[in-house]
Amino acid sequence: MTSLYQQHLDRNPANHAPITPLLFIERTAEVYPQRTAIIHGALRQTWGETYARCRRLASALSQAGIGVGDTVAVMLPNTPPMVEAHFGIPMAGAVLNALNTRLDAESIAFMLDHGEAKAVIVDVEFAATLQRAVALRKSAQPLLVIDAEDALYTGQAQRVGSTTYEAFLAQGDPAFDWALPADEWDAIALNYTSGTTGNPKGVVYHHRGAATNATSNILEWDLPKHAVYLWTLPMFHCNGWCFPWTLAARAAVNVCLRKVEAAAMAQAMAEHGVTHYCGAPIVHSLLVNAPAELKAKLPRGVKAMVAGAAPPASLIEGMEALGFDLTHVYGLTEVYGPATACAKHAEWEQLDIGERARLNARQGVRYHLQRGAAVLDPATLQPVPWDGETMGEIMFRGNIVMKGYLKNPGATAEAFAGGWYHTGDLAVQYPDGYIKIKDRSKDIIISGGENVSSIEVEDVLYRHPDVLAAAVVAKPDPKWGETPCAFIELKAGSQLSAEAVIAHCKQHLAGFKVPRAVVFGELPKTSTGKIQKFELRKQAGSASAIDV
Amino acid sequence: MTSLYQQHLDRNPANHAPITPLLFIERTAEVYPQRTAIIHGALRQTWGETYARCRRLASALSQAGIGVGDTVAVMLPNTPPMVEAHFGIPMAGAVLNALNTRLDAESIAFMLDHGEAKAVIVDVEFAATLQRAVALRKSAQPLLVIDAEDALYTGQAQRVGSTTYEAFLAQGDPAFDWALPADEWDAIALNYTSGTTGNPKGVVYHHRGAATNATSNILEWDLPKHAVYLWTLPMFHCNGWCFPWTLAARAAVNVCLRKVEAAAMAQAMAEHGVTHYCGAPIVHSLLVNAPAELKAKLPRGVKAMVAGAAPPASLIEGMEALGFDLTHVYGLTEVYGPATACAKHAEWEQLDIGERARLNARQGVRYHLQRGAAVLDPATLQPVPWDGETMGEIMFRGNIVMKGYLKNPGATAEAFAGGWYHTGDLAVQYPDGYIKIKDRSKDIIISGGENVSSIEVEDVLYRHPDVLAAAVVAKPDPKWGETPCAFIELKAGSQLSAEAVIAHCKQHLAGFKVPRAVVFGELPKTSTGKIQKFELRKQAGSASAIDV
Repeated sequence: MTSLYQQHLDRNPANHAPITPLLFIERTAEVYPQRTAIIHGALRQTWGETYARCRRLASALSQAGIGVGDTVAVMLPNTPPMVEAHFGIPMAGAVLNALNTRLDAESIAFMLDHGEAKAVIVDVEFAATLQRAVALRKSAQPLLVIDAEDALYTGQAQRVGSTTYEAFLAQGDPAFDWALPADEWDAIALNYTSGTTGNPKGVVYHHRGAATNATSNILEWDLPKHAVYLWTLPMFHCNGWCFPWTLAARAAVNVCLRKVEAAAMAQAMAEHGVTHYCGAPIVHSLLVNAPAELKAKLPRGVKAMVAGAAPPASLIEGMEALGFDLTHVYGLTEVYGPATACAKHAEWEQLDIGERARLNARQGVRYHLQRGAAVLDPATLQPVPWDGETMGEIMFRGNIVMKGYLKNPGATAEAFAGGWYHTGDLAVQYPDGYIKIKDRSKDIIISGGENVSSIEVEDVLYRHPDVLAAAVVAKPDPKWGETPCAFIELKAGSQLSAEAVIAHCKQHLAGFKVPRAVVFGELPKTSTGKIQKFELRKQAGSASAIDV
Repeated sequence: MTSLYQQHLDRNPANHAPITPLLFIERTAEVYPQRTAIIHGALRQTWGETYARCRRLASALSQAGIGVGDTVAVMLPNTPPMVEAHFGIPMAGAVLNALNTRLDAESIAFMLDHGEAKAVIVDVEFAATLQRAVALRKSAQPLLVIDAEDALYTGQAQRVGSTTYEAFLAQGDPAFDWALPADEWDAIALNYTSGTTGNPKGVVYHHRGAATNATSNILEWDLPKHAVYLWTLPMFHCNGWCFPWTLAARAAVNVCLRKVEAAAMAQAMAEHGVTHYCGAPIVHSLLVNAPAELKAKLPRGVKAMVAGAAPPASLIEGMEALGFDLTHVYGLTEVYGPATACAKHAEWEQLDIGERARLNARQGVRYHLQRGAAVLDPATLQPVPWDGETMGEIMFRGNIVMKGYLKNPGATAEAFAGGWYHTGDLAVQYPDGYIKIKDRSKDIIISGGENVSSIEVEDVLYRHPDVLAAAVVAKPDPKWGETPCAFIELKAGSQLSAEAVIAHCKQHLAGFKVPRAVVFGELPKTSTGKIQKFELRKQAGSASAIDV
């Protein structure tokens, strides 16, 4: 039966609009055109100017024949063009594919092919890698390459494109009449994750989810209007956890930073009155382990978010001692970055710092606008008892979960089995509902905030003619959190050295994926011949592993 | 052509959930079960308890056969049951119809009939009016009447229902497994507006819009977690501008207040550490015009929102002098309450108080998550020039616009003509994009924050046998903003007195709709016989109008 509320009360253009972060910058440029949007070296760019530049970018892309459903890749550090890409590309109806600038040419080539990119904007620092990637592409589709120059880049600048970013923008119309997405479910971004298999998977974000997580960031942090945000987190990681859109919604300041270094961070914090920043534990460690004279310059009361790997309690303590207000969040590419937060309680203030750090080191509760985060038995999808002991798998559901994996219906269906997104991370849930990771999905190594797929590294090792069997696990590392540690069983008679293994890996892998330790010997196997990685993890954690 | 992003990337229960404010209370009860949700007299009720009571209410309604698409009316002051109704009723799938407690039995009867209410929760203070309304109903549909008792009500309590609110809740299950709406477009609330015609129109809100405006409130105010909010704004006005949902999202404190009086407000502010409150100008005037010793008790730095009528600059100045941080918002029932805000700028701080008050008295810019607010030529729907002079009509579009008017497709289509919601308010737009109302829709009188339809009052006047012609316009009033002023042309030979006119009106109208001034004489008419109300407005504004 139709209820009285379902008659003559339909959606129409007056009462329904797509949810999209593009409206955030439109409103902010309208209300606060004179406020600073971007600081980069000597550059000060207002929201009015930034919006006009984004419209120019959208206009120029449209003129180049790039539109709805087309992919535009970028290979950029945290510079102004990277901020602008988050708006200008989707304003053209296109999908932003922010590439990890640390990747090797082979990986980049795979992504350009798989994502079917029609254009790529590349910072001069990464031009050489991109050039090699373009040469390695299998696709015959034309690729428009745009060079983003940057006065702050001090290395050898190289141009590989047919135009520069500024020349391209100059062609565009600053009053371009861009269109909202036809549907809020339309894609806004494509982010490759190394995931648990060798080939990267293309995680697709939609406008609805991007706007929702951008808003959740505000709610989590009580982020005020006109906050001053320092870009230490790479924007190619889950679109900087959706913060480019968050900052537009808040008419906030993007303080750009080409390179994350303690001195540059401290300098920017003091000079621009930074109020907020995010990063993996290693980013915060830079400050905790900085020289005393640098620490003395740090402003107090800055709010920091940490995620990307579980922060050790010592880091939480160290940050607190420096006067930072640290919030621990947890997430994955598939859930737009942060998806749980360790929400604090006033009564924790009364606890000693160690106990407080222990509570704060938990992954916490669902992000504000997410429907659900839970630890479930992966077989039954029933919640585990909230006893802090029973393990289950962390799962999410709601509007801050990806559309799915691009051109990979099998992996998508597997990830969403039973109506939940399966993270692969094993955890317990405490009586207060807070989630704590106990073991991460066994194949992932998180090194300096970057995901390294052990299978990908193993694949490379297996390509060496002397290797009989190989397994890669995480080795705890004081600087990087974890590094890949390779266990190799050589073919009979081989005299392969650790150095030769490393050299082989360097040919095929990005630097951060190359094993830092190599151990030779017979690999422990189960009766069915499966390598017992848990045994190797024990060994990698012990001093016996050989560092290279 | 289907793009690669439209293949195998569909909505499913893992990556799509309805947007609804019901998830706000669920999350807050999970994360902050021990924090205070409601203060009312001696009562302190946590979020955990409040959520359990809302689930009880939903459960008990379900047991009573009330579910999806059914209307549940409430006639309640700002007491705990009113807060709970905003969650418990939609958790049952039903639609909350918060009735204006100031209305007369005839209006209430009309609303119960038109909204097809299946149940009504009534505070003992309004039991007598409700009883008369029930007797006046035309519908034969059974109506479950639930009495809400309140220890803080000091008058003669009357019971008219078949059960009490507490007894009803006791039947419900505190762990009731309520369902999210099947669609975020489903109705959550029904709010009657007097509008510009005699019969009230039923404005229907959906879950998507309620959650979106509730979030916009947070963004506008930078509303922090655990804010302490004083309920001076009636929750029957646009669901308290969606603040019951906002406060749940912030794990904030609802400080209830049965009656808005300066002493009670000052007392609550000081005792509970109130940080925020909202109201029509008359509410804030109570504080500005309070005795000095009361003013001395007021905490400083409290944030206040004003709307419901354009606040005079003197009020803005007075509030500032008292140390309040006032934000001026503007809206209508059709747009979930506030829909524009006079967003402040840092540079305004440098201006003298008069100039700053003048800027702050403007209606401002679109609310954060609204797609658009504009002053358009009502004929062409083209924007007026932003010159501060050219008049047009204020129009809105986006997700914070009603579903439409219940059972009134004609009025709905008219309101949404051309893809914008037409407010009927005439305004200009300044070069900075800020909107300023110049003249309100001609038939509406706003008295003490309540809409009075002049047509409704005229209808009553016309019912008197001695009245030949009647017209009602707004008369400026220092206390109420405006009051209705009646101009009456009597039939030949009639000796009807102003007192008799008032007495007649009191029989048929709520007190606030009864004219405060009556003027007898021939009415000015156009050549086609239409009464020239603009002439009458001039007269009503002059001292010659006779107050009764």
